[in-house]
Amino acid sequence: MTERSSGGDARTEATYLIETPQPVERVAEMMAGEQSSGTFVDVPGETDALRERHAARVEATTELETVPEPSLPGSKPPADADADDVTYTRAEVVLSFPLGNTGTSLPNLMTTVAGNLYELQPLSGLRLVDLDLPEAFAAENPGPGFGIEGTRELVDVHDRPIIGTIVKPNVGLSPADTADVLEPVVDAGVDFVKDDELIASPPYSPVEERVEAVMDVIHRHEDETGDRVMYACNITGTVDEMLERHDAVKDAGGNCVMVSLQSVGLAAVQTLREEADLPIHGHRNGWGALSRCPQLGWSYAAYQQFWRLAGVDHLHVSGLRNKFTEADESVIRSAKAVQRPIASPADAAMPVFSSGQWAAQAPDTYEALGNTDCMYLAGGGILGHPDGPEAGVAHLKQGWEAAMKGIPLEEYATDHDALATALDYYDDR
Amino acid sequence: MTERSSGGDARTEATYLIETPQPVERVAEMMAGEQSSGTFVDVPGETDALRERHAARVEATTELETVPEPSLPGSKPPADADADDVTYTRAEVVLSFPLGNTGTSLPNLMTTVAGNLYELQPLSGLRLVDLDLPEAFAAENPGPGFGIEGTRELVDVHDRPIIGTIVKPNVGLSPADTADVLEPVVDAGVDFVKDDELIASPPYSPVEERVEAVMDVIHRHEDETGDRVMYACNITGTVDEMLERHDAVKDAGGNCVMVSLQSVGLAAVQTLREEADLPIHGHRNGWGALSRCPQLGWSYAAYQQFWRLAGVDHLHVSGLRNKFTEADESVIRSAKAVQRPIASPADAAMPVFSSGQWAAQAPDTYEALGNTDCMYLAGGGILGHPDGPEAGVAHLKQGWEAAMKGIPLEEYATDHDALATALDYYDDR
Repeated sequence: MTERSSGGDARTEATYLIETPQPVERVAEMMAGEQSSGTFVDVPGETDALRERHAARVEATTELETVPEPSLPGSKPPADADADDVTYTRAEVVLSFPLGNTGTSLPNLMTTVAGNLYELQPLSGLRLVDLDLPEAFAAENPGPGFGIEGTRELVDVHDRPIIGTIVKPNVGLSPADTADVLEPVVDAGVDFVKDDELIASPPYSPVEERVEAVMDVIHRHEDETGDRVMYACNITGTVDEMLERHDAVKDAGGNCVMVSLQSVGLAAVQTLREEADLPIHGHRNGWGALSRCPQLGWSYAAYQQFWRLAGVDHLHVSGLRNKFTEADESVIRSAKAVQRPIASPADAAMPVFSSGQWAAQAPDTYEALGNTDCMYLAGGGILGHPDGPEAGVAHLKQGWEAAMKGIPLEEYATDHDALATALDYYDDR
Repeated sequence: MTERSSGGDARTEATYLIETPQPVERVAEMMAGEQSSGTFVDVPGETDALRERHAARVEATTELETVPEPSLPGSKPPADADADDVTYTRAEVVLSFPLGNTGTSLPNLMTTVAGNLYELQPLSGLRLVDLDLPEAFAAENPGPGFGIEGTRELVDVHDRPIIGTIVKPNVGLSPADTADVLEPVVDAGVDFVKDDELIASPPYSPVEERVEAVMDVIHRHEDETGDRVMYACNITGTVDEMLERHDAVKDAGGNCVMVSLQSVGLAAVQTLREEADLPIHGHRNGWGALSRCPQLGWSYAAYQQFWRLAGVDHLHVSGLRNKFTEADESVIRSAKAVQRPIASPADAAMPVFSSGQWAAQAPDTYEALGNTDCMYLAGGGILGHPDGPEAGVAHLKQGWEAAMKGIPLEEYATDHDALATALDYYDDR
């Protein structure tokens, strides 16, 4: 969080990775102009005073490597360039925007730092890699209502990751069947269960019925064991639907709502946060479309700040050695970014590790993250354990115990059966 | 719009362009599995009956070219492949999803057709290129409240494009200054003016004050000439802010609201449509991040359907020979897609051409589109005309007259001065 001042004015700093066949400094100036004031012909009325007060500014440019081919189509080399001679320079560019241009509006901040820039003609690549926001954004947006500490209190788990699972199989399951699938997992000792992102409130499983059925299982378990379990019920839908479903979850004694962030969008999440009494579990499905091309889109370090400021408590980050395409370094960068304060530790969210996770990734995850303030979700890693879900949960807890104690998994497995079985079983798959 | 049936059930068809080092047919099956029911280990409970009723289905696969290098990082070749021998096959894949999986919920449809698919491990490319929706989506979502005909009626322009402009310069302009900049353009005879996407309701120009100032100019002009002018006032913000600003626009006699679609998101636009009495002008800033990599993201043909079903009336499509990076063929495909009925002509929206537009692009735009049901916006093309904005507007109308009559611009310019001046002036720039 930077508070660079220009005549006392706070500025938003946005860091981009660009690629261009044109001179980097000139392109950076064009980016700044496009996102504060510009058109293809100079027009009357654009005064120097206006420019001075509201212009975006190039704070820094750092040239990186040069590549022979453009990463993205459509860019234009300089008019005087020899076509055979064109190369594409990658560079880090830092722009700053006066806070007064956007106020603390998150949607308008998004338009300013990640709007029409992506298609500027000199660019054969543009990725928003980080954001450094004036404190006013955290002061005037709600941030997570529960965050890391609030979530830990709700499940009464304080000294290890929150261990959870996803209801799979899921598409087509009735509420009663969902409860039946969850019952052994809940009884096996998970701290957290969540719906799949594909099921919100379809005809075969309305939220109101599903949450009743699932909470019955959870309440019975809590009564019997005293252990608390959080259920992130997928309420994704229109704003009205989400608010109604949130209330249905709350009325059923539920303690978390899940939303597909990109499918509903930022402003809907802002409204939900305003009205919600429960933590918001943020699913990022669709994120690959914005991030998977290295020279385009967004890095999660920038992106997740919008959702946290809007009020999301838990943010998915994939997992180490996941079954998708994201590299481990990127997963860890995301998770650390989700935990990093924007203005204060209270605005941190809880990173959610998932996708092909079992005990094997616990030591590396712990070492890279440096703490246990995360959710660690396993689907097949629990439900697929050869000795059943109780052993599935146990092996995850044992894996994290080993990680926290600095004991290799194989060694810890010698007197921890669930872990030993898992090491034999999953390693071959 | 397909109504393929499976036991009488309607299905959503989604067409993807994929790239993969693995066998296309197997990858297509994996895509279908991931988006209906799947985990990395088979688990109990997944019955054949559930699969039958709810499984996504591979409807078609068509192999295209093979490339030696992956377009995106992170994909995995088959386990038994010789690393030196791996190639990447591009293919068109059509999947279908039972309507019962999502109901007619647009956010949940988005998660299903464009969610976690983008990061599946066998894929070195995935782009959602088209959607063919069951009629139920159009029946149960509102669609545009005004669309092409409703918009034409509001400005009383029926036989040519709606000619408009953007307030530029803009960032930093007070409401009074905005009105001063717009006054000569309104008096010059435009049908439509819009705010820049960078200005919604910042501290220096609150919507409530800006719309009063601008509508004063427009009302005075309408009183004097009888010509109507539409002003798309940028109300982008939280849901509550947008609804309040919509009402302020309406109270001031305004006749259109503009929203940065991706910055607020789908569910917020759905709420706005439900409450709004004015047309919704949809700005797609940020679209490049989802579309500019040819092997990733979305095609506009698929994407724009969500916004139209949600109720957006006007959708930006860039323009021919624009100052950005989009190719002309892509611009025209987008514009045609926006006009193409989903279930009926009433759900068509009006494509908005802009970016570096002047009369020069009118003939090609008209020829490619085959009609004049569009907005045609020029910034510098009006305000920068050497003979002033009246000549700027006149030259655009003359350019479209020439296009509709099939007369070359140069010929038409011989007795149309504004066009003649523009041809001399802009061609050199």
